[in-house]
Amino acid sequence: MLDFWFELASTYSYPAAMRLPLAAKAAGVETRWRVFLLGPLFKAQQGLSDSPFNVVEAKGRYMWRDLERICGALDLPLRRPSVFPRHTLLPARVVLAAGSQGLDLVPLVQALYRANFAEDRAIDQGEVLDEILVDLGLPAAAVREAAETPDIKAALRANTEEAAGRGLFGSPSFLTADGELFWGSDRLDAALAWARGLNHHHRD
Amino acid sequence: MLDFWFELASTYSYPAAMRLPLAAKAAGVETRWRVFLLGPLFKAQQGLSDSPFNVVEAKGRYMWRDLERICGALDLPLRRPSVFPRHTLLPARVVLAAGSQGLDLVPLVQALYRANFAEDRAIDQGEVLDEILVDLGLPAAAVREAAETPDIKAALRANTEEAAGRGLFGSPSFLTADGELFWGSDRLDAALAWARGLNHHHRD
Repeated sequence: MLDFWFELASTYSYPAAMRLPLAAKAAGVETRWRVFLLGPLFKAQQGLSDSPFNVVEAKGRYMWRDLERICGALDLPLRRPSVFPRHTLLPARVVLAAGSQGLDLVPLVQALYRANFAEDRAIDQGEVLDEILVDLGLPAAAVREAAETPDIKAALRANTEEAAGRGLFGSPSFLTADGELFWGSDRLDAALAWARGLNHHHRD
Repeated sequence: MLDFWFELASTYSYPAAMRLPLAAKAAGVETRWRVFLLGPLFKAQQGLSDSPFNVVEAKGRYMWRDLERICGALDLPLRRPSVFPRHTLLPARVVLAAGSQGLDLVPLVQALYRANFAEDRAIDQGEVLDEILVDLGLPAAAVREAAETPDIKAALRANTEEAAGRGLFGSPSFLTADGELFWGSDRLDAALAWARGLNHHHRD
């Protein structure tokens, strides 16, 4: 089992989310997709009110070019969002609401990343979220209604607090059952290999 | 040709410096080893007077564990330095001084990283630098004298300014002949592949 922790506004989490399902299947590792908000962590840990990629110009310039190379190598479309980072409170709640209704999160999360980073769509807007849900054949009205309930709001706060408590400080992060943390899309394979090793260990 | 830009206090640069020579040889890529000081860049770009790994506790905790895993996989000894980051003005000048005398930088730089990150030795101290130079059979007195000359001091300032001008913000960084920047020990292979592609392109 590997926990995939993601913030929907995170650039490097886009290729990670697109690549994870096949890579996890190949490794024989089950994954749990856990959404959280990175903003509160940036604020608490680094005193930042904006993405470090906006605050530190050289880092931002590098990241966009690096992301271009990574997406190019994976044949993933990429269009730099006209707004970055987008507010992800609403779409993160939508993800949790879909999960609470027993829906498969993977296609939804991938569609949200694609909308944000390949189609430059405003995933912080209700209409856009409705379109995405409908396109996936999901019960948009029910999911969006659930997303506004106190339970779902509390669940997102709880996820974000749990992320901080587990030592996260960025997205994507991968957490193994024995508490090993891996940060960054470039650690996806190392995280899967670790999780796979645990599987084998338990089997012995 | 691939430029390897490194700060001697940088943790992830240790495995990169140890791994680069063989990896570059296997890829058929020549490398140029270019030392710089990361402190002035952290200050100018992020307003930091200390390593981000000290400033952001969660990041630091993760980095030391991640480094342990990386060094473990490469069979590299690692002992967490009792002082971090060490001041690297003096050893960086020593590296430039050795280069100015036509000496091979690679064994010296690797010895400095090993001293700092595997042996917890104070590479900011003259006596330690003398020991390292002598152990390598290098002319310690001549190198250390050259390290104090205005030319070498200016050369380090120039390297650091060039690093900033080329968009660097961290170490290790790899820069290809056509200006592609790769940051992090985990980008070493991607950087070599890019540089190798240029070689092949020029050969066509």
